[in-house]
Amino acid sequence: MKYDVIVIGSGPGGYVAAIRASQLGKKVAVVEKSEIGGVCLNWGCIPTKALLKSAQVFNYMKHAADYGIMLDSAPKPDFQAVVKRSRDVADGMSKGVQFLFKKNKIDLVAGFGSLLGNNKVKVASSDNQVQELEADHIILATGARSRQLPSMPIDGKKIIGYREAMVLPSMPKSMVVVGSGAIGSEFAFFYNSMGVDVTLVEYMPNILPIEDEEVSKQLERSFKKAKMKVMTGSTVEKVDTSGELCKVTIKTKKGEEIVEAEIVLSAVGVATNLDDLGLDEAGVQYEHGKVVVDEYYRTNIPGVYAIGDIVHGPALAHVASHEGITCVEAFCGLHPEPVDYGNIPSCTYTNPEVASVGLTEKQAIEKGYEIKVGKFPFSASGKASAGGNKEGFVKVIFDARYGEWLGCHMIGDNVTEMIAEAVAARKLETTGHEIIKTVHPHPTMSEAIMEAAADAYGEVIHL
Amino acid sequence: MKYDVIVIGSGPGGYVAAIRASQLGKKVAVVEKSEIGGVCLNWGCIPTKALLKSAQVFNYMKHAADYGIMLDSAPKPDFQAVVKRSRDVADGMSKGVQFLFKKNKIDLVAGFGSLLGNNKVKVASSDNQVQELEADHIILATGARSRQLPSMPIDGKKIIGYREAMVLPSMPKSMVVVGSGAIGSEFAFFYNSMGVDVTLVEYMPNILPIEDEEVSKQLERSFKKAKMKVMTGSTVEKVDTSGELCKVTIKTKKGEEIVEAEIVLSAVGVATNLDDLGLDEAGVQYEHGKVVVDEYYRTNIPGVYAIGDIVHGPALAHVASHEGITCVEAFCGLHPEPVDYGNIPSCTYTNPEVASVGLTEKQAIEKGYEIKVGKFPFSASGKASAGGNKEGFVKVIFDARYGEWLGCHMIGDNVTEMIAEAVAARKLETTGHEIIKTVHPHPTMSEAIMEAAADAYGEVIHL
Repeated sequence: MKYDVIVIGSGPGGYVAAIRASQLGKKVAVVEKSEIGGVCLNWGCIPTKALLKSAQVFNYMKHAADYGIMLDSAPKPDFQAVVKRSRDVADGMSKGVQFLFKKNKIDLVAGFGSLLGNNKVKVASSDNQVQELEADHIILATGARSRQLPSMPIDGKKIIGYREAMVLPSMPKSMVVVGSGAIGSEFAFFYNSMGVDVTLVEYMPNILPIEDEEVSKQLERSFKKAKMKVMTGSTVEKVDTSGELCKVTIKTKKGEEIVEAEIVLSAVGVATNLDDLGLDEAGVQYEHGKVVVDEYYRTNIPGVYAIGDIVHGPALAHVASHEGITCVEAFCGLHPEPVDYGNIPSCTYTNPEVASVGLTEKQAIEKGYEIKVGKFPFSASGKASAGGNKEGFVKVIFDARYGEWLGCHMIGDNVTEMIAEAVAARKLETTGHEIIKTVHPHPTMSEAIMEAAADAYGEVIHL
Repeated sequence: MKYDVIVIGSGPGGYVAAIRASQLGKKVAVVEKSEIGGVCLNWGCIPTKALLKSAQVFNYMKHAADYGIMLDSAPKPDFQAVVKRSRDVADGMSKGVQFLFKKNKIDLVAGFGSLLGNNKVKVASSDNQVQELEADHIILATGARSRQLPSMPIDGKKIIGYREAMVLPSMPKSMVVVGSGAIGSEFAFFYNSMGVDVTLVEYMPNILPIEDEEVSKQLERSFKKAKMKVMTGSTVEKVDTSGELCKVTIKTKKGEEIVEAEIVLSAVGVATNLDDLGLDEAGVQYEHGKVVVDEYYRTNIPGVYAIGDIVHGPALAHVASHEGITCVEAFCGLHPEPVDYGNIPSCTYTNPEVASVGLTEKQAIEKGYEIKVGKFPFSASGKASAGGNKEGFVKVIFDARYGEWLGCHMIGDNVTEMIAEAVAARKLETTGHEIIKTVHPHPTMSEAIMEAAADAYGEVIHL
């Protein structure tokens, strides 16, 4: 079968690229070996947000009396119901993508796709049927899976990855979460909220290590206030799963410590899915587990492209989607602007939420900028007071000379919905003063962005 | 006593102007006859958001099982506790402004301020002490109060205004809310959520009549789904308060209808506080209840300025604050840009929330624009699905010729935190395509802004 475009992988990189190509008049096929929508829809972004929403509602209920709402008895999570809701949401989204494929006349080919060279793709289905497809443009969008550490081999029962963590058959009493990036921190928060005794272990000096240090420290304070045990600068040396509980040997700054827990969740990053993809057969260049591409996601082989987690840049769904669109628009002759990797937002959906874009204070200083830093705590925000959650702050970093907005770092309620302002304003080359003079509605959490900018320039009102 | 600046009124116009003047080295006094912080802090924006937060938490609890959280018995609001929390939040914010006054060395003068002419202000305290103050710059920021209709004179018991609505001694069984602007709609939503039998009456064809018609109709659908009775195109002709219940005679499109309710809430707009302010004595020009000012809030009398609800423009806290800052910066010689009244966001904190900025579709067409309209429903949003509230949409309006973002209209969860992106991007003169190419984080509600923009240009992915 001959197509204009074949996409291997139906995650947020692949399916978005396929839809954009179809919009631009191309005949498109998507090859998928598993669920439509990839990890993001089925085992990542979406189902975790559903779990976290249940945690948020449960947390509100634990503090119902603070809001004047009375309960005769304590609320209890029905863990199976929480998980089922999350699966239903994921299934609904996956069906949504199938609907979009039909609407856009995109052929869905079930099976494992790999390159054969000469514009050809082999698809091996689960029942060992093999077919060959051909296309002028082949986009690799195969994504990533849990990385495994030798000290913690995932057995799917006692030592688990993010997939198993989403569908545990019952709620464990205790859990050690290893790795405190967005995935680890979100699961640690979720299970801690549900009532599980959680220990979060991070190798780096701070949790959420890619975030601005002040944000990381605030989240650690919030986690500890919620009775989570947080161990930073610590490494898991081994896990003994022979007994009823896992014995986790952790090397800390102060020496070795053994923590016992029912479950160990390994959240130490992801590994790209390049195995058996036919890269060598087709002569496609890759290094350090990433396919080498230019700014329009062209590999060294004409007609072969790669996007998403398997190329340079952060392994995030929204990055993959924009890469897919840019890749397609480029080979369709639309001359899109390349993706600006300096303006990619990052979000963690714990409570408080974390969101950021651009340089941290440390990075800005390391790059030699003279900076103006402004900070506004939600403790001074009317909306945060009214909402009953005054934790967190907005921190902004401007270039002292030209007023360029170098970075924005937020922790607090709803900040994942607030970061888009910073991304858009930075894209539009704002200065600090333009943000100060943007009339933010009152009372909102978003006013804190304006106030933080004003703080950087000595004009803050509410501090 | 001689000051550089005297501000009459300590609401969000007045107190912000005072702080900015102090930052710029001025010796400042603020005259206030009542609570520090004005209506906004004490009887408006802030305490209503606290009430609405209790409603939100209560609503989550009513639907706890949908999120997998189990309750043995139904949650019940403790109305007095809900009100007390709201008052505590307001008191805390008012104390915060007092702290800011001290920190900024601003003198607080308790009493009713009025102009005497010749840069003089008279302050009459509640115990009939009178003092005279003098300043080079006098800023009038006296705000507004409930407007009253002759058919519904507020008696504070059965026919009430927003103030009484915030501190009712007990929860009524039934209520008629007259007027469906932000204030009326928010109280109608709050009391309906608490379990009160609410009827919302609006004179105009749609509730929230200043919003885009599609938004108004969606909110009406949501209200009706929540079992509120909504009567549009209807006028209250009289209220008979002689019996136990109020008999409200309402003229509808189909004829007269009588609705009985314990309480009638009059939310038919505000009237400016110009009485006894000494405008005539000082020769300050005003018309139609508004003081006449130029773009820097200068009245016809040198040294006398007016800001906030008592001048042209929407009567909103954030507008008053920016007017205050602009006024002060101008007379301090900083040459600020005038406030852009075409770029003022408007928010209503019901559930779903409503937020907008710029022209409605109807206004854009009336102004002769050729437009591109895009719309993205939250039913297609992954974050909305995960959050369990798929009501609402984002609607964007662009000028077809140059891509100028003419208007943004949103209804749904968290949209009051999302509108700042539109305000900032419009201020920075974005085009539609720049919003489409702004990498919004996934999964967020804010992606719907990007998708709506893409829809306007035939590039939407998830529809």
